[in-house]
Order: sequence, then C-alpha cells, then structure tokens
Amino acid sequence: MQENTLVFETTITKLLESKKYATLRDIMVTMNPADIAAMFEDVDQDKLTLLFRLLPKELAAETFVEMESEDQEMLIRSFSDSELKEVVDELYVDDAADIVEEMPANVVKRILAQSDPEMRNMINEILKYPQDSAGSIMTTEYVSLRPEMTAEEAIKRIRRTGIDKETIYTCYVTTDDRQLIGYVSIRTLLISDDDERVADIMDENVISATTTDDQEDVANLFSKYNFMALPVVDKENRLVGIVTVDDAIDVIKEEATEDIGRMAAISTTGKPYLKQTVFEIWKARIPWLILLMMSATFTSLIITHYESALATYIVLNAFIPMLTGTGGNSGSQSSVSIIRGLSLGEIEFSDFLMVFWKEFRVSLLCGISLAAVSFLKVYYIDGALFANGDITLVIALVISATMMLTVITAKIVGCILPLIAEKIHLDPAVMASPLITTVVDALSLLIYFVVARMILNF
Amino acid sequence: MQENTLVFETTITKLLESKKYATLRDIMVTMNPADIAAMFEDVDQDKLTLLFRLLPKELAAETFVEMESEDQEMLIRSFSDSELKEVVDELYVDDAADIVEEMPANVVKRILAQSDPEMRNMINEILKYPQDSAGSIMTTEYVSLRPEMTAEEAIKRIRRTGIDKETIYTCYVTTDDRQLIGYVSIRTLLISDDDERVADIMDENVISATTTDDQEDVANLFSKYNFMALPVVDKENRLVGIVTVDDAIDVIKEEATEDIGRMAAISTTGKPYLKQTVFEIWKARIPWLILLMMSATFTSLIITHYESALATYIVLNAFIPMLTGTGGNSGSQSSVSIIRGLSLGEIEFSDFLMVFWKEFRVSLLCGISLAAVSFLKVYYIDGALFANGDITLVIALVISATMMLTVITAKIVGCILPLIAEKIHLDPAVMASPLITTVVDALSLLIYFVVARMILNF
Repeated sequence: MQENTLVFETTITKLLESKKYATLRDIMVTMNPADIAAMFEDVDQDKLTLLFRLLPKELAAETFVEMESEDQEMLIRSFSDSELKEVVDELYVDDAADIVEEMPANVVKRILAQSDPEMRNMINEILKYPQDSAGSIMTTEYVSLRPEMTAEEAIKRIRRTGIDKETIYTCYVTTDDRQLIGYVSIRTLLISDDDERVADIMDENVISATTTDDQEDVANLFSKYNFMALPVVDKENRLVGIVTVDDAIDVIKEEATEDIGRMAAISTTGKPYLKQTVFEIWKARIPWLILLMMSATFTSLIITHYESALATYIVLNAFIPMLTGTGGNSGSQSSVSIIRGLSLGEIEFSDFLMVFWKEFRVSLLCGISLAAVSFLKVYYIDGALFANGDITLVIALVISATMMLTVITAKIVGCILPLIAEKIHLDPAVMASPLITTVVDALSLLIYFVVARMILNF
Repeated sequence: MQENTLVFETTITKLLESKKYATLRDIMVTMNPADIAAMFEDVDQDKLTLLFRLLPKELAAETFVEMESEDQEMLIRSFSDSELKEVVDELYVDDAADIVEEMPANVVKRILAQSDPEMRNMINEILKYPQDSAGSIMTTEYVSLRPEMTAEEAIKRIRRTGIDKETIYTCYVTTDDRQLIGYVSIRTLLISDDDERVADIMDENVISATTTDDQEDVANLFSKYNFMALPVVDKENRLVGIVTVDDAIDVIKEEATEDIGRMAAISTTGKPYLKQTVFEIWKARIPWLILLMMSATFTSLIITHYESALATYIVLNAFIPMLTGTGGNSGSQSSVSIIRGLSLGEIEFSDFLMVFWKEFRVSLLCGISLAAVSFLKVYYIDGALFANGDITLVIALVISATMMLTVITAKIVGCILPLIAEKIHLDPAVMASPLITTVVDALSLLIYFVVARMILNF
C-alpha cells in the first residue's frame, strides 16, 4: 500500500512536469473525490488550480468539498465568477454552508453572490443555527411526499426531483402546512404495489430532531435506530431539513476526538494532527499544563507543612509517587468510565445514586485488593528484597491503609465530578484525568500524613 | 423527557398487571424496535416472554436483535422450536451471526437447527472470520446485478429480491464467476433511462475491503468516502458480502470507547457502564492498577537512593509532585494525540520522523514556557508569598531547569512509544497516559536529582 502510494505520487508529479494534462484528467476521473483531494494536498498551489480545472463539473464540486479549507479559499480566489458559480451550483446546501463558515468575509460575499437566490436563502438559513446544533449540520435538500400520492406517483416524483437531493433513500411525508406526519423508505415504495397510497405504507412513528438539539444527541439517535437520515423539525413540528448518516459519522468521530483530547488536557483544534502547526499544538496544550502546574501549589504546601515529620520518617517520602500515582489512576478510571457513558447517552444525571453506589462498591473492592498487594510489595519487595532497613511492619501498615483510603476517595471524586459537570452544563470531559489527578494528589497526601501521624504518633 | 419516560413505565406496568394484552400490543406496534428492547429491560423475565409473544413476526425479530444477550438467551430457552424458527427466519444473517457468537453451545445448536440450510451456511461462513475483521461484521445478503442488465431489469430484480436484503441502496455488479467489477446506486438506476445497461451506468472505481481487513480500517473507509455500504471480497476478488453503514457506526463507537478505556487503564468489557456488575468493573480495572503500582518501585528506589541529599535539601521534596505531574501531563498530551491520529488513520508509522520533529519543537516551546512560569511561581508565590525561607534563587533555578528537561523528555517518550507499539502490532492505546506517566515519573525524578546535584553540588 505504502509503496504504491509513493509510485503513484511520482507518476503524478512527472505527468504534471511534462504537462500531460489529458492523461492526468483520465487518471483523475477514475478516482474518488476524497482520494483526489488527498492527492491535491501534496501539489503546489499553481498546479492545483490547473489540475482542478481539468475535472468534470460534478467531480470538481465533489472534490472541492473534500479539500482543506485553505486550499478551497485559494481556489475560490483564483476562480472567475462563472467558474465559481459552476462549482457552487453543484454543491449540496449543507456542504456549501460548511465551506462558507470557514471562509473570510470577502470570499463569503463572492460565494453568496454566485449562488442562486434559493441556494443563498438555504445557506443563510443553516448558518443562523448555533454551532454543534442539529440545524447547523442538516441539509435543506430532501424529498418530501404527500400522503395522498400513490407509490407509483411517489417514485416518479423521486425520479424527477431526486437527482439534486442529498439522500433519496428515505422520503418524508408532510401535510400542506409542512407538518411532518411520517416517512417511507424508497425500499418500501419499490416493493409496494403501484397504486398503494403513501398514507397507507408510510411509517407514522417518525423520530425527529429539533433544529436546536445538540449534534451529539442527534448522532446517538443514528446509532440507536440505525437510520440513514433523520428529519429535523422546527418548534412547530414543520419539516425544515434532514441530517444524513455521513454527517452523523463525522459528528461521532469529532466528538470522540474532542473528548479524548479533553481527557488528556488538550484543547480542541478541529484539525488532524499532521495539519496542525507547531504553534497551534503549543497553543492547544500550554494553558492546561500551566493551570495544572499552578494547582500543584496545594501539594507543595501540604508537603512543606509536614516537612519536619518527613525529616524524621524520611522513608515515607519514597512512597509518595506510588500513592498519588495509584490514586490518580483509580480516579481517572472512574471519571473516564462515567464521561464516556454520558457522551454515549448511556448514563444521565438522574442515574447519580446508582452510579455512586456502583463506584463505591468497586472502590471498596479495588481499595482492599490494592491495600493487600501494596502491603506485601512494601514489606517484602522494598523492605526485604531491596534491603531497606527503614521499612518496618508499621510503615508498611501506614502505606497500605493510606492506599485503601486513597483509592476509595479517588474513585468517589472521579465519579462525582463528571456528573456534577453534566448537571451544571459544563463538558464532563473537562473533569477527566488531569484535573481529577490534581485533586486526588492533594487528597492522597493529606490522607497519607493524617494516617501516618495517627499510627506513628508524630 | 425524563418525566414522560416515568409515566410511560408506570402505564406499561399497570397494563401488564391488569393483563390488558391487546392494549399493550397496540402500544408496542407504534414503537421502534430499539425502544421496545429498552422497555423490555425493566420487565420481569416471565412478563418479557409474554410481551414478546404479542409482537407481530417482523417487529419481534427486529426487537430481538436490539435486546441484551442475556434476555435473548432466556427468550430462546422459552421458545418452542417453531417459535424460534419464526424469529430466526426474519433475522439478517449478520445479526444472526452476532447473536450466535454470544450464546452458549447448546443454544447455538438449537438456533442452527432451526435455520434453513442456506442461512446456516451463511452464519457458519461469517463465524469463521477472525473477530474484529471485515468478514465478521459483514452480511452475506446483498443485491448483485449483472453488467448486461438494463436499468429496468435491475429495478425489477431489486423489487423481486430486495425485500430480504439488508441494504438495496447500493447494488454490486459481478461477473459470472462472482468477480466484483462495479457498483451502482439505486438512485442512479432510478434516474437512468429504462433501457440503459448496468455496464454503462455503473461506477467501475469500486472500493472494497478484504474479509481479513481490520474492522477499524473498514469503518474509516466509511467516513472517508461517505459510503452507505462497502463490498467485501475474498482473496480472489470474489464478492462475498457487504458491510452496512449502521455496523460501521457501531464499530466507530466501540473502537473509540475501547481506546478511551485503554487510555485510562481500563480493559474492554464491551458492555455499557450501567450493565456491568461491580465485579466485572473491578476485573477490568484492578490488573492495570496493580501493574502500575508495582512499576512505582522504580520511583521509590530513586528517591531512596537520594535520601541523604533530600534530608539536606528537604525543600526539594515539596516540588516532586509538581514536576512528575507536569511531566506526566505533557507526555500524555503527546501520546494521546498520536494514538488518536493512528486510530483515525491520519498518522502512520511511516510519518515517524515528521511526528518526532513536530513533537520535538512543541516540547521545546512547552518546556521553555513552563520553565519560565515555574521559576516565577516557585520564587515569587511559593517562596515570597507563602514565605518559605528555604526557597532560594538557586532552588528555583534547579526546579525550572528540571521542568524544561522533564517536559521535553516526556513529550518525546510520549510520541515515540505509541508509534513503536503500532510498528510491532501492539495496540498503541495501551501506551497511553498511565504507562507513559509511570515512565515519565521515574525519568523526571532522575532528571531532578541529577540537575540538583550539578547545581547544588551534593
């Protein structure tokens, strides 16, 4: 695979250099839009405009959608008005809206000027919905049928109007005032008798989203019900658009990437790793690193406070990283489980007590297991095997008791914080590992010194 | 929403108690299979069998697929042979194979006995592919067309055979010996003239997966190319099945959940959080916690080794959690970015040098920023503000120099380990936060003490 890619790249470069445009065109028409767009990424800007102009109209528009927004902008700037119009005419409305959102104001003006009035209205319609809402990812191009049509009339209507619609596989049935009353798949239409009425074969149990619904919730509906498309209605239950499954997949991936990033203290950039500049990566990471570093002030203060005790029992020092580390890991296991459950819609805030009770029992099991193992490890491995004479039975006891209490505390903090974040409409993923770790670090040190003082009497 | 659900649950319970079965049936036929299955989860086992028998045949099978495997098993055990046959007849092959995989041997035997021979062969066919391969998630039911058919004949064939096929939206064109030579969407067929040949309207540039391809790579193809279905071929390019977009969505979610779990040191259970028992959760978490705790032996040894120096400069102690914590966070930022890029197919092992060079520059930027901020924090906040007289200019210098070196080391380790894991065919996600943190903890302590010894001359 890798080698073929390399051979292919060399071929394209050579053909470009020797200006074999007809051959290049022949190659590109056999390719998928996504692959042509990927190929364009390795091509110089002046060549890119040239190559793009070789593409047939429809393929050109499909490829345009798949390109990086910087390249799109560059192309638009190099287009004549009529070239721009040709591309815009071929775009689906939701793709056009996505592109418009990424462009600077003067480019947006040109795009809208070259769109026909209907397209312009639809783009403006989509742009006014909040980011990450169902309205912002829907398309306003769909097939709507009337309940009184026959299956034959419906299929005719699809054949006549369907060519421009993003999906014709599910058709929506609406009344005269655009109220959504049912849906029928093209599959049902095809296997029905010609003269059956849409009203009789449609499914009235239609699940829809509202324009303001969160895109993540919309995407979860797709995976729950195995939809190809989901209708979007306004507050008066009038059909205004549809979300298609390909956009739902993008949302699912995007949201997972965002959550994974937040869990590792990285802000969202929305760009693939290799496309991010060093400065962008730095900007996405450094605020969190500074914040978390500053919050370590608490742990410093706690250690400083117990400085004299540590000077007496210097052996206690050696186990601080093990205790805070295990605490942090225990806490992030819980927080990450809850956060993922919340984003998949498997857990809701109303499950608070059930989750708490479950995590509490898990924390007891984990706490007891780790207390036992850490006792054996400290006493026999660190003490006996590595011959550390300072490790007495009492010291091992202090450490294993701290271990148990730390793990229980960590898991409880780990399950409560994300649920509270959800309740107060913060992103629970922000409550993930790094923040939990910082809180748990401080708590485990406090537990350590309190337990040590009680048992060792300092 | 929540309140409605509660009202609905109460209604169902009351109707069940008063044995209003006809009403219950009327309610259920208006519902989606996924919602009926969700409702069944809160119903007692004996009532469940009763309710299930009220469902019409097709809805019963669709609901069965959406149920938890324990409930499926229980239902199968309560079915008569003819009841079982009715359900099995309505199942899609890939769903049947999924169910069979979860059942104990004696139940599997009964299911296979009640399947017709063709279904039995297809189930066995799917079951022989490795887990997580394209073959294991495909269905063997698809519409195949011949190149010499006309559009009209093709549509007729779909109308005749399509009712049992999982997707009819994309049809695959094969030769007499089952070689895959193209595809045509039902949309293209519908908007073509009746007498156009499939060979002339089909797209020959068909992208397919091989039965042994990894399911994650297959799912990535869906998001790259916006497919509704993807054909699966054997090693001789013969069409053997298709993967549908709903299964691709499940794979995308499942793989993200698996990665997120691994990044937080949790083994995969494949079950939603609330469905896992306390013991199952414990089992998924405790091995990692023990492993990571045991690996803290290194940090203990390092601290013990420098015990006498620490006794002299006891102030150094207070900053150990800040240094190891920031190091851990820096490292996991890098590892998580690379791991996500690898799973999305955005990064490959061949990008090693590019990734390394990028992370190296990011680590310099982050290292310098954090060194500066930590110097100011330690000297002015911890030293002056909290009046810690032990913090001198030299101590602040030791800490900020260690900070810079730790961050650079952490980011480099964080980007190299996942790439190496990918190269040696381990799951890169295993190299995520907790393991990186343990390695970085030990490295940052070493750096700390070496830097301190050089500057403080102990």
